[in-house]
Amino acid sequence: MTPEQAGAFLTIDLNKIADNWRKIQAKVGDKRQVAAVLKTDAYGLGAEKVGEALYRAGCRVFFTAYVFEGIALREVAPDADIYVLHGVLPHTELDFLKHNLIPVLSTPRQVVDWNHLGHKEDIVLPAALHVDTGMTRLGLTAGQIASLEKNPEQCKYLNVRLAVSHLACADNPDNKMSGEQLKKFEDACAVLRRILPDDFKESLSATDGYRLEDERFYRDIVRPGIALYDGAVSLEAKILQIQDVPAWQSIGYGATHVFMKKSRVATLGIGYGDGLPRNLSNKGYVLIAGHPAPIVGRISMDLTTVDVTDIDVEELQQSPTAEIFGNELPLKDVANIAGTIDYEVLTNLSKRFYRIYLD
Amino acid sequence: MTPEQAGAFLTIDLNKIADNWRKIQAKVGDKRQVAAVLKTDAYGLGAEKVGEALYRAGCRVFFTAYVFEGIALREVAPDADIYVLHGVLPHTELDFLKHNLIPVLSTPRQVVDWNHLGHKEDIVLPAALHVDTGMTRLGLTAGQIASLEKNPEQCKYLNVRLAVSHLACADNPDNKMSGEQLKKFEDACAVLRRILPDDFKESLSATDGYRLEDERFYRDIVRPGIALYDGAVSLEAKILQIQDVPAWQSIGYGATHVFMKKSRVATLGIGYGDGLPRNLSNKGYVLIAGHPAPIVGRISMDLTTVDVTDIDVEELQQSPTAEIFGNELPLKDVANIAGTIDYEVLTNLSKRFYRIYLD
Repeated sequence: MTPEQAGAFLTIDLNKIADNWRKIQAKVGDKRQVAAVLKTDAYGLGAEKVGEALYRAGCRVFFTAYVFEGIALREVAPDADIYVLHGVLPHTELDFLKHNLIPVLSTPRQVVDWNHLGHKEDIVLPAALHVDTGMTRLGLTAGQIASLEKNPEQCKYLNVRLAVSHLACADNPDNKMSGEQLKKFEDACAVLRRILPDDFKESLSATDGYRLEDERFYRDIVRPGIALYDGAVSLEAKILQIQDVPAWQSIGYGATHVFMKKSRVATLGIGYGDGLPRNLSNKGYVLIAGHPAPIVGRISMDLTTVDVTDIDVEELQQSPTAEIFGNELPLKDVANIAGTIDYEVLTNLSKRFYRIYLD
Repeated sequence: MTPEQAGAFLTIDLNKIADNWRKIQAKVGDKRQVAAVLKTDAYGLGAEKVGEALYRAGCRVFFTAYVFEGIALREVAPDADIYVLHGVLPHTELDFLKHNLIPVLSTPRQVVDWNHLGHKEDIVLPAALHVDTGMTRLGLTAGQIASLEKNPEQCKYLNVRLAVSHLACADNPDNKMSGEQLKKFEDACAVLRRILPDDFKESLSATDGYRLEDERFYRDIVRPGIALYDGAVSLEAKILQIQDVPAWQSIGYGATHVFMKKSRVATLGIGYGDGLPRNLSNKGYVLIAGHPAPIVGRISMDLTTVDVTDIDVEELQQSPTAEIFGNELPLKDVANIAGTIDYEVLTNLSKRFYRIYLD
């Protein structure tokens, strides 16, 4: 796809991403490591490009969800620690060994199987242990860790490098649950330190935990995801058509908007098929030459219509594109209007955009 | 990505898609053509695979939104008519000529420019004309067509093969707007037949227009999109972990669900980062061994948790996957619970699935 052929442009500022990473590193201090969570193709922004930029900035610890994401990342981060959060899915053991990826083991079964493989091959295998402190999603419970203590031979062939947990409510600094999870994590790590011969690191906080600005949550490794992208991403769509419409004309599927007066409409080369939430229909807005233009009518699969009646015609004609989100219109606000979170908007962004990586 | 590495499987039945196309062809009769709308990567299902299957079934007319989509489709449909709905974006003229793609011209400017190119190169260029009958999105208005009649030399170098319009409210058979749009379309075509030397075909109906089951809306070409996929797509996610949880345990981000009794939870290898609408959190359900398992807690980027307390343990252990949608749980119902339409769910489906094409 060429820029001329595209309907919209996604700009990803790799320098800004590296800067964000450096700022977090400066904040948590040299004793701690700042990892980068690059699962889901780096939240839709391109894991290899983002990974390469962060590796160049000095990042040496990465997290992915799946082993195939780890394999792709290994290409640009040859000597980094790459942890795979979903652990070892059946019959993927060799993928981990071949690409030197570290599984985050989540269940007693995974621990037994990974240890068994080490035993069989007579090697000590690197691993992380996922501790469930309240997400009830993945990870070993306190009870399962206690029974590990009774059967320490289950870890004999494991070199446990890291214990990982995840906070459920860290987006709200007043929520008591974060403190409770911290306590559970410390308890679990204390038990694990009795079983495991080698020293291991601890990681509890992703972006929201880091933003609590409380050192107790930083542990050894903080692992920001979305915090890496603050101010680094913008999306613009081409204006494909500008049209004057008479009063009482309706617009879009279901004719959900009717113009009360003679108006002017711009049609943009973006739709919900590109990941623009359909829920922004008749609610969201875009910016053209810095001026807000409300979305009118339902967003279509490939097109979005905006009311540009109040924008000066000359300014309009000099504007080839509209800002969907970016510096002037924060992604967070757009996600808010759509009734969701910036994470979901980002990860839904389509491959159909022409991508510009600033480097 | 191998099936072992994947968290979820998307199955696309190409035979069923071809069958759906044949059924529509049988319904509208041999005098008419049934096109296939394969924009947005065939609604996220893979335009080249779907295009190839439909070409083999006999489909010879395709619609895409962008010229790059047309270029990709040309590979599998060497002699088909491929119409590009967004028309000629600036500086993409040669892409159309090189790949023998037909632009659907939407604005007076596009008509003038395309005609000018024909004049300059002294060739007659194939084109379609987009007639706006009420979507107020793309297309020539009645007024613009009238001024075309006054300047017929603007079409001198065009071989207009097709006039296209699109119904806004055809999902509701009782809506009067469809009839009004039909009338406007007939009027516009009557004017165009006075200007244009060559015979051209007419197309007004996509899936919803076809489903009105009223021959007046069929014209010469019907162009189904989502109707091609009825019963042809299913999505399953792996069960990554099954966990017993005590009463009063909470789950997921924000701890939005609390278990009232001792329960059992399955964690699935799918999340909103894969396109599963986050809006299904605490509302949707999946099927495991045919039994419903409600989604509990917020859907995460990579994981979804479901309550499996009421499912027999043995059945549960024999089920490696959960059905997200498919034969037993229609996509339309899932979209409905999420507060959106099947089109948006389909087009958001991620590249992270392992795709199985039945052929």
